[in-house]
This record gives sequence, structure tokens and C-alpha cells, in this order.
Amino acid sequence: MKVGIVGATGYGGLELMRLLHNHQKVKKIKLFTSSDEGEIFSQKYGHLKKLYDQPLEKIDAKALAQLDIVFTSTPSGISSKLLPPLLNGTTKFIDLSGDFRLKNLEDYERWYKKDAAPSDAVEQSVYGLSEWNKEEIEEASLIANPGCYPTAVLLSLLPLIKENLIHVNGLVIDAKSGISGAGNKPSMITHFSETNENTAIYKIHEHQHIPEIEQAMKMFANNHSPITFTTTLVPMTRGILATSYAQITSGTTEEQLYNCLVNQYHNNPFVRIVKETTKFGTNQVYGSNFCDIHVKVDLRTGRATIVSVIDNLVKGAAGQAIQNMNIQFGFDETAGLMQVPLYI
Amino acid sequence: MKVGIVGATGYGGLELMRLLHNHQKVKKIKLFTSSDEGEIFSQKYGHLKKLYDQPLEKIDAKALAQLDIVFTSTPSGISSKLLPPLLNGTTKFIDLSGDFRLKNLEDYERWYKKDAAPSDAVEQSVYGLSEWNKEEIEEASLIANPGCYPTAVLLSLLPLIKENLIHVNGLVIDAKSGISGAGNKPSMITHFSETNENTAIYKIHEHQHIPEIEQAMKMFANNHSPITFTTTLVPMTRGILATSYAQITSGTTEEQLYNCLVNQYHNNPFVRIVKETTKFGTNQVYGSNFCDIHVKVDLRTGRATIVSVIDNLVKGAAGQAIQNMNIQFGFDETAGLMQVPLYI
Amino acid sequence: MKVGIVGATGYGGLELMRLLHNHQKVKKIKLFTSSDEGEIFSQKYGHLKKLYDQPLEKIDAKALAQLDIVFTSTPSGISSKLLPPLLNGTTKFIDLSGDFRLKNLEDYERWYKKDAAPSDAVEQSVYGLSEWNKEEIEEASLIANPGCYPTAVLLSLLPLIKENLIHVNGLVIDAKSGISGAGNKPSMITHFSETNENTAIYKIHEHQHIPEIEQAMKMFANNHSPITFTTTLVPMTRGILATSYAQITSGTTEEQLYNCLVNQYHNNPFVRIVKETTKFGTNQVYGSNFCDIHVKVDLRTGRATIVSVIDNLVKGAAGQAIQNMNIQFGFDETAGLMQVPLYI
Amino acid sequence: MKVGIVGATGYGGLELMRLLHNHQKVKKIKLFTSSDEGEIFSQKYGHLKKLYDQPLEKIDAKALAQLDIVFTSTPSGISSKLLPPLLNGTTKFIDLSGDFRLKNLEDYERWYKKDAAPSDAVEQSVYGLSEWNKEEIEEASLIANPGCYPTAVLLSLLPLIKENLIHVNGLVIDAKSGISGAGNKPSMITHFSETNENTAIYKIHEHQHIPEIEQAMKMFANNHSPITFTTTLVPMTRGILATSYAQITSGTTEEQLYNCLVNQYHNNPFVRIVKETTKFGTNQVYGSNFCDIHVKVDLRTGRATIVSVIDNLVKGAAGQAIQNMNIQFGFDETAGLMQVPLYI
Repeated sequence: MKVGIVGATGYGGLELMRLLHNHQKVKKIKLFTSSDEGEIFSQKYGHLKKLYDQPLEKIDAKALAQLDIVFTSTPSGISSKLLPPLLNGTTKFIDLSGDFRLKNLEDYERWYKKDAAPSDAVEQSVYGLSEWNKEEIEEASLIANPGCYPTAVLLSLLPLIKENLIHVNGLVIDAKSGISGAGNKPSMITHFSETNENTAIYKIHEHQHIPEIEQAMKMFANNHSPITFTTTLVPMTRGILATSYAQITSGTTEEQLYNCLVNQYHNNPFVRIVKETTKFGTNQVYGSNFCDIHVKVDLRTGRATIVSVIDNLVKGAAGQAIQNMNIQFGFDETAGLMQVPLYI
Repeated sequence: MKVGIVGATGYGGLELMRLLHNHQKVKKIKLFTSSDEGEIFSQKYGHLKKLYDQPLEKIDAKALAQLDIVFTSTPSGISSKLLPPLLNGTTKFIDLSGDFRLKNLEDYERWYKKDAAPSDAVEQSVYGLSEWNKEEIEEASLIANPGCYPTAVLLSLLPLIKENLIHVNGLVIDAKSGISGAGNKPSMITHFSETNENTAIYKIHEHQHIPEIEQAMKMFANNHSPITFTTTLVPMTRGILATSYAQITSGTTEEQLYNCLVNQYHNNPFVRIVKETTKFGTNQVYGSNFCDIHVKVDLRTGRATIVSVIDNLVKGAAGQAIQNMNIQFGFDETAGLMQVPLYI
Repeated sequence: MKVGIVGATGYGGLELMRLLHNHQKVKKIKLFTSSDEGEIFSQKYGHLKKLYDQPLEKIDAKALAQLDIVFTSTPSGISSKLLPPLLNGTTKFIDLSGDFRLKNLEDYERWYKKDAAPSDAVEQSVYGLSEWNKEEIEEASLIANPGCYPTAVLLSLLPLIKENLIHVNGLVIDAKSGISGAGNKPSMITHFSETNENTAIYKIHEHQHIPEIEQAMKMFANNHSPITFTTTLVPMTRGILATSYAQITSGTTEEQLYNCLVNQYHNNPFVRIVKETTKFGTNQVYGSNFCDIHVKVDLRTGRATIVSVIDNLVKGAAGQAIQNMNIQFGFDETAGLMQVPLYI
Repeated sequence: MKVGIVGATGYGGLELMRLLHNHQKVKKIKLFTSSDEGEIFSQKYGHLKKLYDQPLEKIDAKALAQLDIVFTSTPSGISSKLLPPLLNGTTKFIDLSGDFRLKNLEDYERWYKKDAAPSDAVEQSVYGLSEWNKEEIEEASLIANPGCYPTAVLLSLLPLIKENLIHVNGLVIDAKSGISGAGNKPSMITHFSETNENTAIYKIHEHQHIPEIEQAMKMFANNHSPITFTTTLVPMTRGILATSYAQITSGTTEEQLYNCLVNQYHNNPFVRIVKETTKFGTNQVYGSNFCDIHVKVDLRTGRATIVSVIDNLVKGAAGQAIQNMNIQFGFDETAGLMQVPLYI
């Protein structure tokens, strides 16, 4: 397998390189970037010395077309232009940006405030929520890899919505995220002294992952409703904890919710349903491709609190992308990904 | 003013000492503890050298009765036994524990899993939410100082509930807190390596601040309903960010919600209503007695997201306690408390 | 007192505002900046709402000349141009940058890689190490406020060098600092995801505070030698811990070193000598103007380890500047500054 | 290979489990503990669900004797009693505690303040500094795995001492460590609120790793002298940055020091010599078995500053232990260990 990473210098790209390094089917990884062309990569990022001592290459359509698979981990608005001309070749593409996720182009333009990708490319793309879309992923030549927040939210809610155990109407989702999701471009939002010892809410009701979540609820659970969704930044690097609040349907018990999740994911190696817990946190999945889910019913209010945790850079980005590659190419779904979380 | 602090070695006690040190009406501070009796305080806590180089004293009812005011900052179940016999004297008491907050003794025993205080003492106590209960606080000899979460939640929601701008039915409150709220007793929950780089949810639906919030909604806004309330620990020391989700009543606009809050707190020095913000966080109030509030309506869902931040050790504990003392004794409400937040 | 702050939007400026807010002699504070002119300051920095709701003013020589005292907290190379023309007026100046610290102009140009200030202005300036230069500070119209590292290092070493208890030759100084010392300009060095969970050494042997330390050793202890000095960034916002290693002179005991420090600072309110400690850290002085010092002799090697901690933004910058103002104007040296450290 | 871990519930044990999980030669891992016997391990540590869903076993000499290799990751004073009776069997042992490191039993008792292991067991043990003791490690039945600080210090200094490029006399070593080195037992030293936003020095001149470093300098570089060694705790979980200060020998250049290191480690996969750097930090090796080294000469003082970084739980403990197992059993030295550092 010859693999390319476009946007190698970003955090998504770095994480792809970390995980692919131990993937036994991957023989060669080429690194592309729009800047620092020709620079030895391990001189820019010292942690890669002895691992990726190779020059960064200029993004070049021809070079990409000669690879088996290309991951694009670029800011919004890049891959929508780069990839469409290449889709008729033999190379498979997995795009980690949001450019091909929203089937409704107006939604893209409204939430991303950028031009949408060409409609035929968007139509052709397959939404890469690995546990829910395997058959399409197997056949896909272009995968729109899900966003970090949607992954955490959808894996925990889709089974319960599909089985009609919770009301989709009135859903409130409060997601907390580490700072790495903001990427590697310095700004006041990510400046250490402003971010450390600070928990802050931002983009209230305006996050571009909102339409993605709603679209997937419709797509996979055949039910949706506008969600209230907020995102809070917490002073850590990795991890998302998403807390969802839903009215349970009449007569539903905590046991039923738990069993529904267990049954849904029984054969999925990366989703773990946690029953008893005094504390349920992001460190349980740190550095790994796991998604852990916990559900608890409040009998006083008839509402369920559903909590899920992922590593935003792994299951929320690079890990799920590799999981999708494994599915596409018929490898073991866990190839290169079955790592023990760091925890500490 | 001769002041006593019972439980001086806990974080609540330390913060009282920090803030009272610059209070111009306070001449003498005596420190009481159930352990380390006789020890020079600044040898236990080096940061107090040259500031509190005095011995800790044994808790002694007679000694307390000779003071003008005593703050009890003790674990649940201590002040409920210590204070009742002292309530007929001239000393005023402000209790920072939860022992006198819940008027319904069964609620206390259910949520705290301890014996309740004597009913006459509980009846006599005044709930010290400074901005909402000034007249009673002025006359009180025993103040039940509010919990940290209730303070953040109630200040932001009470005006909107009272004015019938949001539905109290269906309220969801997702509160995030730094670790100092767990006190200074080491445990796995507060062990650095388990807590750092970790965001974790705990005590889902079971926090003892739930009945306190519901009681105060009834008391001050004459309306209440069971709330869904969760608490998430984030890896920082100080600060609470409480995010509340409420259905707005028919026809209500964001402007109305904002104006309601501005009008309510127009004359309150410590509550700040923030209109425009790209990021709204706990560092805005770090080390200060401020509570900042922001509200935003989601037109897609007809729901309002109301966010408030406090320093849990100041406005959520020691600062509000001193504010209450100021009100009780007729001092300027801001005496000793008008400090600029550290921010960085 | 009418006070001006030039560079109000930087972290030094913010800290001046925090501390001056409670200074009883300060009636009016004007804020100057080279950017954001006209903007209401508390809209830029939300934590200042209700405290500094005033517009930023353009830096203007005439406006500065009408104030009693002006603090310049600007990047290197600004005050060296701004202040010299104003030095003949009645306004006193305290410069928090390095522009007037080095008496040898070539040293400035070599270490700062910028043009030095005019020589007469540099000559006129007084080095504001409060505890060591009070008489000159009282008379000064221009004070060069010491750097953060030099303050921590000099306060701990000067007494021992002056009394010939340690050898100045062979001194090794290993200083650790929080990130706020790097200011508020975003960069990869201060980007949260690169800085969190990372301890990193930078500018080895090249820090511009090296000549400042050596100059002050000569100035105050009449002895100096090239020092080995490194700086390590640790993942916290505030605080410096400086560890110095020195050969003790023949026959010197730990007791003598301790007593020397105690005697030197007996009448200095902000310097605390700590004898026994299991752990000695920056949180002991967090948010305060204290400098804590601890010394320990290693009999196996005949070497002393001298450790000092300060809050880099307070004693290492704004706090010491205000202490100098107090000395200049004949106020109590502790006015506005005797605050209890936050510790937690 | 059947592997046992004694002390599985500690951080050393957890890290062994993390790394061994992907080691292709390891088929079965048995977990032993002195507490929680019978408990399903993944119920205690949720991050291990689906990975180690097996019960903890009681420490039992017979069970250990049936394994191919046993790692003991226990507090001081345990393995010195557990292992000696087992040393004549076929099982190989790698002890991660300090019990077998010091050949001089009096040194052990003086620095550890505990009874030493039996002298014949200590004599038989091989010091497992992988890069420096391969031949002995290959033959060893009991390996004393090096301490975290000694690993970081020795790898960076031994080549320079051996080649006589720096003076061993007068060495100053200032090591900074994350908190995980203190293990998983809660205490005030590791309590989040006391540790976060705090850099603190502890055990000045008294750390038990001092005699280990001096012994290894004699053993591998045939030269030693009492060192001055201090340890500073910084608010992060993983990582050690050790800064060593040494007088260079006459005529030595930075280039020579650099080349000496490069030559020494040319064939060692886990040691990386870094030439140019603006910032050199622990995140370069986070989660990996790498040790990165940087050296810089200060011409003003004739002194070299040598900096090294490791992950204390990997190269400083579990990683090096597995590297030693690989050497003992003739596996590829990097088996299970060639992972890309997390960096972010």
C-alpha cells in the first residue's frame, strides 16, 4: 500500500502518521503540504526523528493519482477543489475536512461560510461513520470522514433514536473538548495563558457540526429534529466528552437503554458500553480509537443522560479514517488501531 | 470585628483568610480546627508566612461565643451539631457547609445521607444568596451560605424564571467545575495523574446541590420543577461554568432575556451581564467575587442557552460568605471583595 | 495620583491594572496603547467589566507629561525611543521593559539585538531592585524595573555573594518559568497543544537576562563572574522557580547561609526565608509580591542549592514596579501589595 | 511467551500492560497484585475494557515460577523479599523497583531507609541500562531495571565522561519530572489542587537515585564523583527533562560533544541526538521509548549544558524493561516499542 497524506503538518496529519507507522499493510507514506515544501519533516517536528526523516512534497495531482489511498487533512475549502478532478482514477480518498460531509450544499455554505464542493462529488462521497455505514464504505472511492463531535454524539445516540427509546425532539447536547481540535495555528483562542485554567464556551448554537449530526440522525435512524448543541473548551489537549440529554419514551428503563447499546455494538471492537462507574472520563480512551458510552436515567425527570468519550484526534479523526481505510481495502477493521489507551 | 474561622485548614477556610486579610473592618481572625491544634498555621501552609503566623486553636464553643462572627467551613454533618447550642448568643454565624440549606429535613437526609440539623435551627437559618435575599440576610444570626453550583445556576436563571421568560419545566443544567471544589483531602478522584488531561462526569443526577437549586427556584421565583443536573470535572483548579438549557416562553426574544438580566442586576456590583462574546470563560472571574452571565437564543429550537461563570472558592463560597457578612453588619457590600480577576 | 500605563493590553499592563485598582493613593489610571485606540478596554478584556470601562488612548507624549507617574510595559525597543524626550519633566517613569537596564550599551545591543537607548537616559536610569536600591529609587525619575528571572535570582544570591559565603565563580542557575512570561502574542512557543504536558528548555545560554544578572552582582555585591544560566518553560501560567548551585566558601555551614538571608531581609516585608520544607513551590507566592527563598547545603559536594520562587507577573514585573512607585513617592512600601497568595 | 506482571495496579504495571499488548512474542499476560485479588482488572481500570478483562491474581511464588518472564513493579522493599527464592528456576525476572540496583548494600539502606536485599541476589542482578549493558543483559536472570532519572541522566552523560570530554567533578544535574513518577497513591504531594499551576522542588540532595547515578558512572565510564542532583516536580503527568551542567575539558568543542554522542548511539534505535533546536521538550518523546539528547557549550563559562528528555513511564520504566526483555530473549530490540511519540 502506498499512502499519501495531504496536510501532513497539521494535527490530523501528524496523528495519521503516528497511527499508520505501525500499520502492517502500509509500506510507504508520502507527505504533502502547501507550505514548507522540500523541508525534512523531522526537522520541523522533532518527535518524528528516525521515523519520518523525509522531505515534504508539494501537493501534486499526478503524484496523488499514483497512490493507493490519499488522506486529505486540510482546512475547509481545500479538498473540495483538490479532489473532484481525481475521483475517476484508481486512488481512493478519505477526506478529514468537512468539505464532503453535508449532502445539502446550502447547508454547507450557510454553516461553513464557504463555497460548497461540486454536487456530483458530494453525491458520490460516503459518510464514513465506520460502525454505521460499513457496506457503503467498502465500495467508496471518496469518504467524508466524520467530524469529532458528530462521532462522539452519533455513536451514543443513534441506537437509542433508531429503537425509539428516546425522543429526538428536544435533544440537548453539551460537548466538551480539549484544545487540539482547534488545530496548530496559533491564535488567542489557543494561546496557553488564555486557555490554561480556563473553561470557556464558544460558537454557541453556531458550530458547523450541527447540520452534520442532524443529517446523520436522519440518514441512520430515520428520525431527526433540530438539536441544541454547544461546545465548551477545557484546558487539556486531547479528548471529547459529549453529554446528551433526552426525554425517554414512555415506559423505557435504564436497562433497556443499556441493552440497546450493548446489542448494537456487540460486534464492534471500538465501542465499549460502560455500566457502572463513579467517574467516566476522557482519559479512558486517550490515544486510542475507542468510544466509551454510559447512560443513566433520571426517574425524577424522565430524562436520560447519555455520555460518550473519544480521543478527538483518533476516533474523532485519524483513527476513524484508518478504520475506514481498513474497511475499504478489506483489512481487519482493527489493523494498526488496537492500542491500549494511555490513561495516565 | 473579631472573626473566627472553623475549619481553617480546608480550602474554604484558606480562601476566607485570603479575602478577610484585606477587609478593613476585620481586626482579628481566630483560626479553629479539629486537627493540628497548636500548630503554627504558616508552618502548615507556607504561603501564609508573615500573614498568619499564629497557632491553630481547638474548636471551643466558649471561644466562638465571644466573637462577633464565625464562619464554619467544615464537612457536612459538623456544623449541624456545633452551631445549634450557640444560636441564642450575640455571635453571628455563616455556615459554608450544606447543613442548614435545605428546609425539608428529609431532603437533607436523602441527598446528604447524614442526619439533618435540628429543625428549629434550620428554620431559623437564612439562605444567603446575597443578591436575592438581602433583607433576610441583614437580620440573620445564622446564614446558610449557598453551594457553589447553586450560586452559578440561580443567579443566571432566577430572573428569567421569575419573569416567566423561560419554562422551568424541562430545564437541563450542565455544570463544569475545577477540582478545588472537591476539597483538600487526597483521593483517586483528585489525584493529579488521574485528573490532569481528563474531563470526567460524576454523580450523574445525584448531586446534593439539586434539591438546593429546586428549593431556591421555588423560594425566589415561585416556580420550580425537577431539574436535570450533571457535573463535569475539568482539569483546572478554580472555576465553575454552568450551562443551562431552557425552552423560552412564547414570543420571547434574546433581547428580552438580556434586558431582564441587566435590569435585575443593575444595582448589584458583582453580577455582570455580557452581551457580545466570542468566548466566555471562567478566567474572566478568576480569584474574584464576580458572576458573569451570557444568554443566547437558538431560533432553530426555541431554546435559550444561559451560561454563567464564577470562581467556586469566591462567589461560590468564601467571597459570598463575606458579602453576606457585609450585609449583616451594614458594611459596604463590596468591602474586601472588589478585586480585579486574575484572568491570566 | 494620576497614573498612566503604556502598553495596557499586554500582560504586564493588565497586571499593573489589577494591582493598582486597590492602591489607595491612585485616583485615576489612564491607559495607552499603540493599537485598539478608542476601544473600550473591558470589551477587549471581559474580566475588566465594571472595573475599567474606559477607552484606550493613543500614546501621546503630551498626555504622558501631565501625569504623576507612567509605567511603560512595552516590548523591547519602544520605551528607549518614547521616554528620553520626557525625562526633564515632572513625570516619573517606571519602565518594565529591558531598555534601560544595561548600563553597557554594547551589552544591550549584543543580547537584545536592537539599538540601545541614548546613553544619557541609560545613565540617568536607576535599577529598581527594590530591596537593594532603595535610596537611589527614592530619587529616581526613571526606573529600569528588573526582569523576572533576575529578580528571583538576585534576591536569593546577592546576600550570600556579598558576605562571601558562596563562590561566584562557577555559578549555575537553572530557572523554570510559567508561560505568561512570553506575553500575549500567539506563537507556536505558546500554543496550548504544544505547551501543555510539555517541559522544554529554550534559549540555552542566550537569554538577555544573563548580562542583567551579572551587572547587578557587580553593582550590589561587588563581585561577579560569567554565570551559566538556562531557562525552562513549564506548563503553567504564572511563576518562576530559580535553582542556583554554588560552591560554598571554606567552612561555611547551612546555618550561616540561612542566617545571612534572614538578617539581610529582616525588615523587608516581601522576602520570606523558609527553613524547613518537604516541598517548596511557586504556588506559595501565586498572585502576590512575595519572594520565598530556601537554601540547602550538600555536604557530599560542598555545594549549596539556593531556591527562590516569585510570581513572574507580580514581584517579577508589575508588583515590583508598584513597590518602586511606593518608594519613589514615599508611600508605605507595601501599599496595594500586601495580598495573600492564592496558593490554590 | 508467558509473562507475569507483579504490581499490575500501579502505574508501572499499567504501562507494561499497555506496551506488551502489542508485543508479538507475548501470548499470555498474568496479572498479580497484593490487593484487589480476584477483581476483574478492567472494572478497576475502565480504560482496559475489552483488553484486559481478566481477574487479578494473588502473588504466588509457584505461579510465578511457571512463567517465562516476570516483571515486578512494586514499591521498594517488596521484590527484595519475593524474588531471591525464585532465582534458581527458569523464569527470568525484571525488577522495576530500586531493590537490586545498588551493589553496595549500605548505600541502599542509607538512601532507601529500608533493609537491603540478600547480597547474593544483588550480586547476581544485572543493571539494565539497555544501551550500555547489552552483553550482561543477554545472560541475566535478574535485571535491575534503572530508575527514571538515572536513565535520562546516564544516557546523556556517560559517553562524554567516558571520552573525557567533560569533567565529572563538579557535575550539577537539575531534573524536572511530571507527577506520574510519584505513583498512584494519593497524597498531598500529588493532590491536583496543590500540584496544578505549581512547580516545586523536593528531596533536595536526598533522592535515592543519586547513588545509582554515581555507581553507573563508575561502572560504565570508569569515573565518578559526588554529583549535585535536584528534582523538580512540574504540573504535567509524563516526562522527564534532565539538565546537566559540566565543565568541559580543555580544548573540547561543542562539535566534539555532539559527535561523541552521535557516534556512541549510532546503532541504537531509541537514542536520538538533536543538533539544532529552538525549543527542546518532553513532548518529543511522549508515550515512546525514545531518549532525545541535546548539548550546547557556553563559551563564556567553559561549561556544557547537556539536556535529555524521556517519558518516565516508558524509557524510564516499562519501555526499557521490555527492551531488556527483548535483549534477554534475543528478540529484535525494538519489538513492541517502536511507536511514534504522541507529541500532542
